[in-house]
Amino acid sequence: MKLNQIENGFELFYKQKSILCHTTQHPAFFVGIGEEKIASYRGNFQIEDRIIERLPLKYSTIKENTIYLSYDEKTPFQLKIQISPRSDRDLILTIQSMNPSLNRFWLRLVADENEKVWGGGEQMSYFNMKGRHFPLWTSEPGVGRDKTTEITFLSDKYHKAGGDYYHTNYPQPTFISSQHYACHINSTAYSEFDFRHTDYHELHSWEIPKSIEIYTGDTFLTIVEKLSLRFGRQPKLPEWIYNGVILGLKGGEKNSFSRLDNARAKGVPVAGIWCEDWAGVRQTSFGKRLFWDWKWNPKRYPNLAKKIKQLKQQNIRFLAYVSPYLCDDGELFPIAKEKGLFALNAQKEVALVDFGEFYCGVLDFTNPKTREWFKQEIIQKNMLDLGVSGWMADFGEYLPTDDLYLANGMDAKIMHNAWPPLWARVNAEAVEERALTGEILFFMRAGFTGSQQYCPMLWAGDQCVDFSRHDGLNTVICGALSSGLLGNAYHHSDIGGYTSLFGHRRTKEVFERWVDMAAFTPMMRTHEGNRPDENFQFDQDSSTIAHLARMTKIYCHLVPYLKSLVDEAYTKGYPVQRPLFVHFEQDINTYDIQDQYMYGAELLVAPVHKQGVTEWRVYLPSGETWISVWTAQEIQGGQTITVPAPIGKPPLFYRKNSQWTDLFAAIADIS
Amino acid sequence: MKLNQIENGFELFYKQKSILCHTTQHPAFFVGIGEEKIASYRGNFQIEDRIIERLPLKYSTIKENTIYLSYDEKTPFQLKIQISPRSDRDLILTIQSMNPSLNRFWLRLVADENEKVWGGGEQMSYFNMKGRHFPLWTSEPGVGRDKTTEITFLSDKYHKAGGDYYHTNYPQPTFISSQHYACHINSTAYSEFDFRHTDYHELHSWEIPKSIEIYTGDTFLTIVEKLSLRFGRQPKLPEWIYNGVILGLKGGEKNSFSRLDNARAKGVPVAGIWCEDWAGVRQTSFGKRLFWDWKWNPKRYPNLAKKIKQLKQQNIRFLAYVSPYLCDDGELFPIAKEKGLFALNAQKEVALVDFGEFYCGVLDFTNPKTREWFKQEIIQKNMLDLGVSGWMADFGEYLPTDDLYLANGMDAKIMHNAWPPLWARVNAEAVEERALTGEILFFMRAGFTGSQQYCPMLWAGDQCVDFSRHDGLNTVICGALSSGLLGNAYHHSDIGGYTSLFGHRRTKEVFERWVDMAAFTPMMRTHEGNRPDENFQFDQDSSTIAHLARMTKIYCHLVPYLKSLVDEAYTKGYPVQRPLFVHFEQDINTYDIQDQYMYGAELLVAPVHKQGVTEWRVYLPSGETWISVWTAQEIQGGQTITVPAPIGKPPLFYRKNSQWTDLFAAIADIS
Repeated sequence: MKLNQIENGFELFYKQKSILCHTTQHPAFFVGIGEEKIASYRGNFQIEDRIIERLPLKYSTIKENTIYLSYDEKTPFQLKIQISPRSDRDLILTIQSMNPSLNRFWLRLVADENEKVWGGGEQMSYFNMKGRHFPLWTSEPGVGRDKTTEITFLSDKYHKAGGDYYHTNYPQPTFISSQHYACHINSTAYSEFDFRHTDYHELHSWEIPKSIEIYTGDTFLTIVEKLSLRFGRQPKLPEWIYNGVILGLKGGEKNSFSRLDNARAKGVPVAGIWCEDWAGVRQTSFGKRLFWDWKWNPKRYPNLAKKIKQLKQQNIRFLAYVSPYLCDDGELFPIAKEKGLFALNAQKEVALVDFGEFYCGVLDFTNPKTREWFKQEIIQKNMLDLGVSGWMADFGEYLPTDDLYLANGMDAKIMHNAWPPLWARVNAEAVEERALTGEILFFMRAGFTGSQQYCPMLWAGDQCVDFSRHDGLNTVICGALSSGLLGNAYHHSDIGGYTSLFGHRRTKEVFERWVDMAAFTPMMRTHEGNRPDENFQFDQDSSTIAHLARMTKIYCHLVPYLKSLVDEAYTKGYPVQRPLFVHFEQDINTYDIQDQYMYGAELLVAPVHKQGVTEWRVYLPSGETWISVWTAQEIQGGQTITVPAPIGKPPLFYRKNSQWTDLFAAIADIS
Repeated sequence: MKLNQIENGFELFYKQKSILCHTTQHPAFFVGIGEEKIASYRGNFQIEDRIIERLPLKYSTIKENTIYLSYDEKTPFQLKIQISPRSDRDLILTIQSMNPSLNRFWLRLVADENEKVWGGGEQMSYFNMKGRHFPLWTSEPGVGRDKTTEITFLSDKYHKAGGDYYHTNYPQPTFISSQHYACHINSTAYSEFDFRHTDYHELHSWEIPKSIEIYTGDTFLTIVEKLSLRFGRQPKLPEWIYNGVILGLKGGEKNSFSRLDNARAKGVPVAGIWCEDWAGVRQTSFGKRLFWDWKWNPKRYPNLAKKIKQLKQQNIRFLAYVSPYLCDDGELFPIAKEKGLFALNAQKEVALVDFGEFYCGVLDFTNPKTREWFKQEIIQKNMLDLGVSGWMADFGEYLPTDDLYLANGMDAKIMHNAWPPLWARVNAEAVEERALTGEILFFMRAGFTGSQQYCPMLWAGDQCVDFSRHDGLNTVICGALSSGLLGNAYHHSDIGGYTSLFGHRRTKEVFERWVDMAAFTPMMRTHEGNRPDENFQFDQDSSTIAHLARMTKIYCHLVPYLKSLVDEAYTKGYPVQRPLFVHFEQDINTYDIQDQYMYGAELLVAPVHKQGVTEWRVYLPSGETWISVWTAQEIQGGQTITVPAPIGKPPLFYRKNSQWTDLFAAIADIS
């Protein structure tokens, strides 16, 4: 990578291609002043900006490794940019504002007509982001996420919660270009990636970012490896996860454990039971919600401590649930309030957040006292000491930006996106302090830059219990692929989806198709959904439980292969689920595929994500001979084929020359 | 009004109040460069802007009557503004761009917390615009116009046509402030009025406007009078209009005229029959649409010429329909094409516009040849010579901005808003050339600055056939009041509404409530709607036709009074329907009322616009004793009262000291 001075500006090159070109005529840097308006309702944010000033920084002066930028030759410098090469392939532009009133920043990178761009955190709708615009702000992902569907309309109307294609629990201002470079904006402010223009990408941030980082590599995998080193690598998965499915059950002690016993009796390999209601429940119009007072609820689970021990002896782990908030009607709230652990409002009172018919205090993790208290009192004493082996570390996206004051004195607007990794860090440190990293597994939906370092496992958030384009099964794949490229090696989802509203209910078909996909992810976990009684459950009929048993056996059967992928994730940062193109760079047809994935380098999975189909179209990348797991047929790559796709036989192909052919071939024999 | 130099800037005062204040610290003028994206679909426009540059013009230099503005002391001047006082009360700021690359302009005026602002053309949802943002671009007004309603959702989904509160056929960048001034932006470019800020109004235009005009007055009526002089005054209404209702019928000759005869036999006073299908019809999925080939269709109306003569002898006029487009499957299209009368695309072919399952050429009225041909061949020969006395001059809002080239060489983006007055002018000139001004009445929904001069009568466009908040009966009142303040003295609407989609159908109740209101507007006209067969019609039952007869008699009974209002409109520019506050400035409670109006200075009308009500709440302005028309009861003003409101007795009050008390009192006796 090279930075050259050119007439009236400068240009950044990689392999003869221009990445960034700044001239007086076509400036790449803009700064300005904006006045935003952020309205939030239960984790859904309505964000507006009014640009008061936007100055093109036309004039540049380069002194050694430093660039000074101004609007005009005669006006004051606005930015000072220091260029620090990291090897001859990577570059950090460290940016310093020379005008304290600036709060908006734009950078244009050179775009190519045929370019693809991927990343942006965990994107649920569009894997290749070219041609679209992506606000990056952690939030509820939306229900429906498609303004043309009735469920989105109703969610918008009644809960302001319909969402859109770019809403995600886990945004991140980082992308990889098909031009073989990655760009990262080092800022936690609200940002936007605009890939709609033919000749430039515009990256926008609501502060002057600390730096812009650019990484290049000969192959996409090299870049993925670099990003994973940059953002942090996850520990290996715990051994117990490989034992089978984790059953999500929340009916209280009797219901949950008897259903676990039943599943085991029907031959389902079970790694754990996940009772998110371990701390109690409350009823709301959305459905059953948990009681956010993070300690064992002996009314709902009278014998939990004993039960957890018994289960562990049977090689079955118990998983719980926690969030970074405490409900104001719980027992822990007054304790934390007394200790001054909550974020405050202007009146110096605890800032309460509406979570949907109940209110919570926001534990202020910028306060070291809060972190210590939460780690010790909640995670270590209330959870680890109880014997739990994992949990859903839910939420982290709701940090309000209005009337909320934090202990570190930072603006909540700047801390909003920083919250998910901060929340992940509290969990990770609590585990690490007990030397249980790699043995305890928590999983999160919220994320941002740095989550990679602390969060050992993502889950895809709350899909609708359906096959819808923007909120159904297929969005999980898109989420795994986009987040995976940025160093999140492990991803999974609620089997069967979660959100059931306005009469939309989970069917047997949706549930079983989801199981078919989940067997080829690093972790299988069922969820009852927000309204268990109205939605199809794994043990509702004998054929479904048999199907779950068989698919879990396939998952277990593949553990040796999965462990090799975990090793690869640990040493190289490659995600377990990968976009086809990272292994088939030469085949441009793979660059836009977002509903198939490579499970490691060897196995191609094409989950069925439509209702009522018996066949499925699959693209097999070129330069390889593929073998169908179910028919043993050999198929030449470089073509789209149509295959039978009954439930229980998701389209699945492996490389003919794989060292794992025996293992893969044996999948077909599992019953 | 005074312009004073102050430290680092200048300030414009009226009556000790600051209207415009410009300093280095708080500039009022901004300029910049934007890149817009305008997508249109059947008259619905999706408009996006990307601001590339926005420069605050912080530095000002005043030389005599000229202000020069720049970003910085050391950078070039961007704007030159010449100040021309018109009397000591009004002011024109003539603006000249000194930088040809500028295409965006912003002006901030001083706002007051308690201020109200009205105008913006014909606004259908919000009369007082304070607190809201108004894009000003002529377009379809939308179906439903409320993103929380199902009909809007479905219209958006299937036709991109749901619209929103600010969509209107007739926008105009002019407003009146409760601070007793009016401001007009002299530009036809896309513009936005942003009244959301507490301390400033921001006016925005997609070009450097030719000028900004500011008018002040001691009373609101003085300002209305000035605006009406500025924008042009309408001729008086023709005498024949006062004879009764105009019946909209479009079933072809036999159906239309037999229903006219029936109405007359049932005692309905009829001024005219309006057959919009005089040129033929076509069937589309929206409903019956007209055949846009502007000449008498002898198949549908075999004896029309003769019939028109007969009717005229009976004092009944015939009204037709015309639009500024020709369908490409009509007989006139090839003629106009041959003569080169259409707007062209880049291939120099006729630019065709999709009007919903049929395509039309856009008659290029910037071409004098087109204007002459249309006036002579269509309006004069095909319509006036046939004997028509009026017509709906429909549309004018669809001018595409992409791939459309006009004879005058102007950008279609600049001509888009200019189109409605240009279309009105063609109609007005055709009439004037036959010396029929004031005798022929055409009516339009599309408008923009200058329509006042050419269009003798507005109609409120296409409401839904219901009582909905943003697209029902009540929006007609808001439209009359806002457009009326800007010099449009005459306004009326389709009785019963027009648009029936997605199972929404006109009821007897909606129709009759609409009649109740229409009797107190300058013109009564029924409309069958877009799907006549599925919607309630005036002659569908005997009680409705009797009700129509009685309310039309009331309209006729009030003609002496109405004529006095027409005289007032002619001499002073006051609208016939007026917001309460222009006559009750001292009563601030009247400033936000948008569902009641003064019919002239003497009669207060409060139309019922909700379903199934038997009573209605009415605010009676203070400082007056009011008499209820229906009960003769005297009521002191300055209070909200609840009155019985059966169909046929819309809440109606007159001033006790009016010179028209006898006429008003006699309304109650009409049966």
